[in-house]
Amino acid sequence: MLRFALIGAGRIGRLHADNVNANPAARLVSVYDINPAAATEVASKHGAKVALTVDAALGDPEVDAVLIASSTDTHVDLITRAAKAGKAVLCEKPIDLSIEQVERCRQEIADCRVPVQIGFNRRWDPSHRAVAEAVHKGEIGALEQVIITSRDPGMPPVNYLKGSGGIFRDMMIHDFDLARYVLGEEPVEVTASGSGLVDPEIVTIGDIDSAMVIMKTASGKLCHINNSRRAIYGYDQRVEAFGSGGMVISNNRTATTVERFHLTATHVREPLLNFFIDRYSEAYRHQINAFIDAVNAGRPPTPGFEDGRRALLLADAALASLNTGRTVKVGS
Amino acid sequence: MLRFALIGAGRIGRLHADNVNANPAARLVSVYDINPAAATEVASKHGAKVALTVDAALGDPEVDAVLIASSTDTHVDLITRAAKAGKAVLCEKPIDLSIEQVERCRQEIADCRVPVQIGFNRRWDPSHRAVAEAVHKGEIGALEQVIITSRDPGMPPVNYLKGSGGIFRDMMIHDFDLARYVLGEEPVEVTASGSGLVDPEIVTIGDIDSAMVIMKTASGKLCHINNSRRAIYGYDQRVEAFGSGGMVISNNRTATTVERFHLTATHVREPLLNFFIDRYSEAYRHQINAFIDAVNAGRPPTPGFEDGRRALLLADAALASLNTGRTVKVGS
Amino acid sequence: MLRFALIGAGRIGRLHADNVNANPAARLVSVYDINPAAATEVASKHGAKVALTVDAALGDPEVDAVLIASSTDTHVDLITRAAKAGKAVLCEKPIDLSIEQVERCRQEIADCRVPVQIGFNRRWDPSHRAVAEAVHKGEIGALEQVIITSRDPGMPPVNYLKGSGGIFRDMMIHDFDLARYVLGEEPVEVTASGSGLVDPEIVTIGDIDSAMVIMKTASGKLCHINNSRRAIYGYDQRVEAFGSGGMVISNNRTATTVERFHLTATHVREPLLNFFIDRYSEAYRHQINAFIDAVNAGRPPTPGFEDGRRALLLADAALASLNTGRTVKVGS
Amino acid sequence: MLRFALIGAGRIGRLHADNVNANPAARLVSVYDINPAAATEVASKHGAKVALTVDAALGDPEVDAVLIASSTDTHVDLITRAAKAGKAVLCEKPIDLSIEQVERCRQEIADCRVPVQIGFNRRWDPSHRAVAEAVHKGEIGALEQVIITSRDPGMPPVNYLKGSGGIFRDMMIHDFDLARYVLGEEPVEVTASGSGLVDPEIVTIGDIDSAMVIMKTASGKLCHINNSRRAIYGYDQRVEAFGSGGMVISNNRTATTVERFHLTATHVREPLLNFFIDRYSEAYRHQINAFIDAVNAGRPPTPGFEDGRRALLLADAALASLNTGRTVKVGS
Repeated sequence: MLRFALIGAGRIGRLHADNVNANPAARLVSVYDINPAAATEVASKHGAKVALTVDAALGDPEVDAVLIASSTDTHVDLITRAAKAGKAVLCEKPIDLSIEQVERCRQEIADCRVPVQIGFNRRWDPSHRAVAEAVHKGEIGALEQVIITSRDPGMPPVNYLKGSGGIFRDMMIHDFDLARYVLGEEPVEVTASGSGLVDPEIVTIGDIDSAMVIMKTASGKLCHINNSRRAIYGYDQRVEAFGSGGMVISNNRTATTVERFHLTATHVREPLLNFFIDRYSEAYRHQINAFIDAVNAGRPPTPGFEDGRRALLLADAALASLNTGRTVKVGS
Repeated sequence: MLRFALIGAGRIGRLHADNVNANPAARLVSVYDINPAAATEVASKHGAKVALTVDAALGDPEVDAVLIASSTDTHVDLITRAAKAGKAVLCEKPIDLSIEQVERCRQEIADCRVPVQIGFNRRWDPSHRAVAEAVHKGEIGALEQVIITSRDPGMPPVNYLKGSGGIFRDMMIHDFDLARYVLGEEPVEVTASGSGLVDPEIVTIGDIDSAMVIMKTASGKLCHINNSRRAIYGYDQRVEAFGSGGMVISNNRTATTVERFHLTATHVREPLLNFFIDRYSEAYRHQINAFIDAVNAGRPPTPGFEDGRRALLLADAALASLNTGRTVKVGS
Repeated sequence: MLRFALIGAGRIGRLHADNVNANPAARLVSVYDINPAAATEVASKHGAKVALTVDAALGDPEVDAVLIASSTDTHVDLITRAAKAGKAVLCEKPIDLSIEQVERCRQEIADCRVPVQIGFNRRWDPSHRAVAEAVHKGEIGALEQVIITSRDPGMPPVNYLKGSGGIFRDMMIHDFDLARYVLGEEPVEVTASGSGLVDPEIVTIGDIDSAMVIMKTASGKLCHINNSRRAIYGYDQRVEAFGSGGMVISNNRTATTVERFHLTATHVREPLLNFFIDRYSEAYRHQINAFIDAVNAGRPPTPGFEDGRRALLLADAALASLNTGRTVKVGS
Repeated sequence: MLRFALIGAGRIGRLHADNVNANPAARLVSVYDINPAAATEVASKHGAKVALTVDAALGDPEVDAVLIASSTDTHVDLITRAAKAGKAVLCEKPIDLSIEQVERCRQEIADCRVPVQIGFNRRWDPSHRAVAEAVHKGEIGALEQVIITSRDPGMPPVNYLKGSGGIFRDMMIHDFDLARYVLGEEPVEVTASGSGLVDPEIVTIGDIDSAMVIMKTASGKLCHINNSRRAIYGYDQRVEAFGSGGMVISNNRTATTVERFHLTATHVREPLLNFFIDRYSEAYRHQINAFIDAVNAGRPPTPGFEDGRRALLLADAALASLNTGRTVKVGS
């Protein structure tokens, strides 16, 4: 039985709480939020206690694992403190927006030897995962190209995006992780291009809302990622892997399998699932379950801290490429 | 808060118990099973009490509604007793295999005025339901034809089917209900044909495993249903509605959206969902929620007792048609 | 080189003329039409001569084969005369609307031993044909069920349909032939139902515009056919074969592969091909080529006269079933 | 009536000859090939004369238009001479592998004022064209991203590719043209990456077989193209356009619409059309028809000489980017 403390009782924290308690091998025992009312609501729903401070949660001997679902700027501090308290950690992505911070955290927790998993939920989507597994099993022979299309249903206000770290660190970071997962090999070169097309005001804050990237691995595998902050037909999330033996694609999802045939159009289906929590509901569930299984079994959970760091290195390289108009080598 | 007693703690009863407790407006308070250990297991999982007898469950003033998930031959007795005890009833399909029994039950509970819902889960499948709603809203103009394909993934042993009531009462009864729901009008004529093709031994018990039916309503709408006891590619469940203004189809489901492209074949997808509890997991959930909503709101739940009776009349008419080689008028 | 006379230079005759001359092993040499101007137009386009009478065409020693594309009521007479003149015959469907006429023709040409093919073009559609071939090769194990959906894009005026022979002989005859082809076995029982839904006035001429049929073969295979005289989304032509080893489906066709994704709908495709000559353009071409190949090789072409007769027997049985409300045994 | 001389009677020349003569407003009157037997074969099939020299063909007053289907290195010379002879020109792509040669040709024919069309056949594919037209009509609002996937079914021997000009000028040139057509705006920046993955020997001749490109227009629209010299599942040709109002995709084609459902897989379709002449048969036909219509109507045909030049500029920019690891500005 893995006993969790949840830190951060917002929308995503509440979802994680439900998923923890749906797993018979885990239990939510403690909830902390800077807003005690939010913590109380989640705690009472699940029969957990409210932790009045982070230290109370982290120091609790009845807590085995900490689920960090608070704001990004708290992640590094919380990972460090939880690791030092000897707790297993499942932390929402990204680790941090600054690679220096991430490196520092890495060094600080190096000796703690606690299991750390980063919440790159898309790896756990059954369809994306089936693509990666088909690749890794050699179903499409030698992998040659990966193409990831990733478009959010709607763009947040430009003002809100100011603190986001930019499209590469905030949004494409998911796709960098997914690309690494499918590729099974590190990208060594990144080239990026982008524009402010959805809301041209985005460029006033030094960001873009439409982006295209090409990456290349040491063995020459190619990967393209495209992002848009707004797809009016829904949350567009596709992964394509192409190799010497074929191709495998993870397509989009709609809520039903209904097709309509009218005078002017046929095969009409409803819009794609629009909300990330609907689109990736299975992924969030599998993610928690995988963490619980790994920790209970004494295996390192995945994707781990290093995966979070690598994704950020790719995001930084993409930004450097965008700014310089050059293909950028990825640091290590 | 609607408080449930569950009668029958087998596979489907346990699923219902989970769904009851996932609804914040309901709670499982009592469980009865002829096997007390089964009752105890479900009760303890959900913090409910074990009822040692049916009467204990039905006489419990803390019970508002009874969920009947025991074997078919107990349904009429339990519906009658629950109704007389003033409890709302959600009973698994079918009400009974004998129309005389159903008529008798109808008369016995006529004055009880309790809400009764029959567990025709397919009406609650989001895709099938979207077809029915499109029809009822006039999206395809005047409805003219309905085609239901319904094939089980695998055939039970012939011996097991002896007590099933035959393919029309045991299997196609679901499709008769769905047909009535989509048609929005009673079929008045039924014609049936069938064979023992999956396991020819089926004919030795006076049954068939492959069946085709045509029905016609008073206004001339046509409906075809086909059944097979075995589809090796999975649980094949499709509904097509055709009218003056177009067509709408509920297609099959696979676990992922993955497509594969090989040397010899493309657009390859995995097998259809194979297990009725996976295929109709959403339907089971929506079914319970709809019952809870209706009873809590004082509305009659649907599909009701009369729907259960009507479906059985169609099954009996199909059997009569098969036996006589004639189109059979449906009783009322 | 197979030299053709064309009898009937209307729309379908002109299409056949193009297809004959596109085959390097054949040549159109003569054209007859009751309207000499129509014959002249086709003849001059293809460098053929105009035959002033049917006898001139049939008596021409430079003619090896006769392509009969004139009105249905002339088919029996022309087949008989062409056969007696020793010409190979490719005649548009149906042979005749009267089974007695067909029987008489059969006897009259029995000794002529000329190759006769009936223009059931759908057998030659690449997708429908692939279904039949998959079945015949055992790809889906033992065949158990066939489902044919066949809906015309638009209904002709009721007045025009007066001379059509009714929906079973005029329209479903195509599907009866296709069913026999896919089944690989004769249906022995036919049950039919139908209504006047598209244009209720159809019943005033003793016909229907919406029909459903079930057929059964001696070995118990089941086949369902549904017809409508009007599908506003286009020409709906599907064939499904289901067996112990799987299912194979011939789906509909659109002019392009384009999919559109909008705010309110996704996977939107254009209407189905609407015009039978577009939908079955490949079928018409393959049909002529198959006839040319067979005759040039001395093989009997297929589908032959007996196929035309059998399809009419099924149509007559369906009509008898509709009129009597009984399952009808098929004559032989 | 537009009278054509065909120069080059190879595979693609013969296809063009068929398409010319299938158009009632055009006629093939003359054929030249360096191999007189090849010219004779095509000429005799179509009732045209054999031209013994290019000059004979170009000087023939009965010739209105010249269809250049000879090898790439003859294009510039033949375009120039045909234009000076006052003939309309339809020339296979590319104009030349050298931009200097193309510029020289442009100047030489500048005063000839003859209609010139370049054989970028993909613009004429009904599905790709429907995408472009949807974009140009504003169906997807403001265009933001274009994604072109273009993979050949099989790779020619590396030795053969030596004279090809490299993947960008030989293969992706088609996609550059298609991109320009869909974008409706000139790309101003090109970034390329690539590898030798299909046959690593390709790098020994300074070429690659797998390529990814990103382009950007002045207004910020983004375009990604990926190429592979080998897709074992067939000729993979897709175009996706994404904008503020939605998305439109041109998908791949298979020969039939058949779907198969087996024990281990469903929705199985046959391989994609494999041969460019099958895949683009309609495109080749529409291309010739459009040329004939334009010239007969006195309108400039499209895509014209400038389109051929622009595509080559993009190919050269891609190559420069690949060689320098920089985003390259496109010349004008």
